Amino acid sequence: MKNDLFLRALKGETVERPPVWMMRQAGRFLPDFRTLRDKYDFFTRCQTPELATEITLMPVNQIGVDAAILFSDILVVPQAMNIPFEMKPGVGPWLPNPVKSMQDVNKVIVPEIGDTLGYVMDAIKMTKHELDDRVPLIGFAGSPWTILCYTVEGHGSKTFDQAKGFCFSQPEAAHLLLQKITDTTIAYLKEKVKAGVNAVQVFDSWGGMLSPADYHEFSWQYIQQIVDALKDIAPVIVFGKGCWFAMDKMATSGASALGVDWTVTPETARKLTGGNITLQGNFDPSRLLSPIPEIERLATEMIDRFGKDKYIANLGHGILPNIPVENAQAFVNAVKNYKKN
Amino acid sequence: MKNDLFLRALKGETVERPPVWMMRQAGRFLPDFRTLRDKYDFFTRCQTPELATEITLMPVNQIGVDAAILFSDILVVPQAMNIPFEMKPGVGPWLPNPVKSMQDVNKVIVPEIGDTLGYVMDAIKMTKHELDDRVPLIGFAGSPWTILCYTVEGHGSKTFDQAKGFCFSQPEAAHLLLQKITDTTIAYLKEKVKAGVNAVQVFDSWGGMLSPADYHEFSWQYIQQIVDALKDIAPVIVFGKGCWFAMDKMATSGASALGVDWTVTPETARKLTGGNITLQGNFDPSRLLSPIPEIERLATEMIDRFGKDKYIANLGHGILPNIPVENAQAFVNAVKNYKKN
Repeated sequence: MKNDLFLRALKGETVERPPVWMMRQAGRFLPDFRTLRDKYDFFTRCQTPELATEITLMPVNQIGVDAAILFSDILVVPQAMNIPFEMKPGVGPWLPNPVKSMQDVNKVIVPEIGDTLGYVMDAIKMTKHELDDRVPLIGFAGSPWTILCYTVEGHGSKTFDQAKGFCFSQPEAAHLLLQKITDTTIAYLKEKVKAGVNAVQVFDSWGGMLSPADYHEFSWQYIQQIVDALKDIAPVIVFGKGCWFAMDKMATSGASALGVDWTVTPETARKLTGGNITLQGNFDPSRLLSPIPEIERLATEMIDRFGKDKYIANLGHGILPNIPVENAQAFVNAVKNYKKN
Repeated sequence: MKNDLFLRALKGETVERPPVWMMRQAGRFLPDFRTLRDKYDFFTRCQTPELATEITLMPVNQIGVDAAILFSDILVVPQAMNIPFEMKPGVGPWLPNPVKSMQDVNKVIVPEIGDTLGYVMDAIKMTKHELDDRVPLIGFAGSPWTILCYTVEGHGSKTFDQAKGFCFSQPEAAHLLLQKITDTTIAYLKEKVKAGVNAVQVFDSWGGMLSPADYHEFSWQYIQQIVDALKDIAPVIVFGKGCWFAMDKMATSGASALGVDWTVTPETARKLTGGNITLQGNFDPSRLLSPIPEIERLATEMIDRFGKDKYIANLGHGILPNIPVENAQAFVNAVKNYKKN
């Protein structure tokens, strides 16, 4: 690997400067992505390895990030499990038949990955070839809880009350669904590693909607299964947005790194996690709308506070579509130019 | 006051059992409210003292809560400030002319409360008369930051990125707007106290969208001004959803009580706030979809963990429209029947 900063940071090794990448870096803030999006619909982009490869490489070639993350979507997993969804323009994911009962859960399958998600593995192989070991490639999946949120709610939500109501009123059905998603996700991520990804990240985007006790019951125990199954074949990064209250548990899970959102200060994140695990984050995505000198100042301060080692510079959630490319570039450059005085 | 449990808990006095009320208790989960809603539009309900009084009393008469909270909306404040809004069915608040620039902020006025919000004071006087000192009456306002969120974004949002972008790219305009909202809110809450409310609550529903540093700059310093201006004339409750990271600061602000959401365990909430201030919360609103025996068990456990003193039982956010009345009733009854073994 020509640039192995990201993998070294995941191992906790001493580095010259932290590696940097941005969640959703292969996405709408890039003009070239928007051009492709106008030509090909969402499913075509995901399922055509040439397109997924081209999109994955955009931020590597154009912004110079230290890791690539395969262009895909967390909802390809439920799709393979016989829970179809559509992408409604201006709305986002839309499930015509959300899961509402044990009967619905019984119709959900744990698929053969090769039969249903082979296109992802083709995209990984093609991307690895094109990357030519310039930077590592990350594969990702949604957490079982986050996938359940969409499959029950049927669409995005501010609070995912229907998903929560399903868990609280039909816990048996919820746990059966969560276990099916977990089994599929483990098989899926193992195939990704076989196909060539250098690390995997689990996104628990909606874990922060739950109380600590409910988080353990409906989210964390399934993420732990994924970490257990993957940690010996690839480094695992767990990112739970709003899950500050579970970071102590996450720190001893066997994950190589934990994502941190911007509501947690670097000092609090280090304290909650015991100071010994690699942390990734946590620039507020909206802060990329600040003037460029302010972005540079805040990014440098962020590294000062996390420390340059056991640290991966990133945003605290996905980059927003309306971020000017030069602002994202300023963020990445500030990390790459970091020198502790 | 016949039932002064709520006021005694705010003073930190020893009580037989904690008082209980529910955020948004005068709202859509009540069938009688829905009937009124079908007859009168949102503005008619807010601006007609007889209707506001009738709605405010519903949960007192029907559920037996220990405090009433005046039926109104946080957006009546920006409305009085020359920022009109509509209520779009199925969408929520909608501002035809969101604030986007310093020029827009300059058009925002700090109004005379009597001229613009006199109908709220009329509703308070009528409600106090009807309550006849059975339980105390709470008046409320949104935090300046939360009001800014709506006035800039123009509608509800998952992340309020436009509001944040406005603050980060035009901080001078943002601070001018926040100060105007603060000045109006202080005058408004003082009038409410004069009209008869026994306590006030400030809702910072969107404070948790900000990093700790940005929270201090764009939200907390304005809430502190409100607490400073009100605390000598009425007890002030501050509720910052998702603001666990600022609870230490809040605890020494002069507020009488702090709201807590369900992502913070009772033990953590006590620890973060130093163990000496009254706390209010924090039942997950979605947990009212659990079977009734589970609701009773969880409510009792919540009181055990917070302790019966310096504590006001409540939800961790507003009650959801789809909660069965008997489930809400079970929650309230569980608190009223609380006896520590």
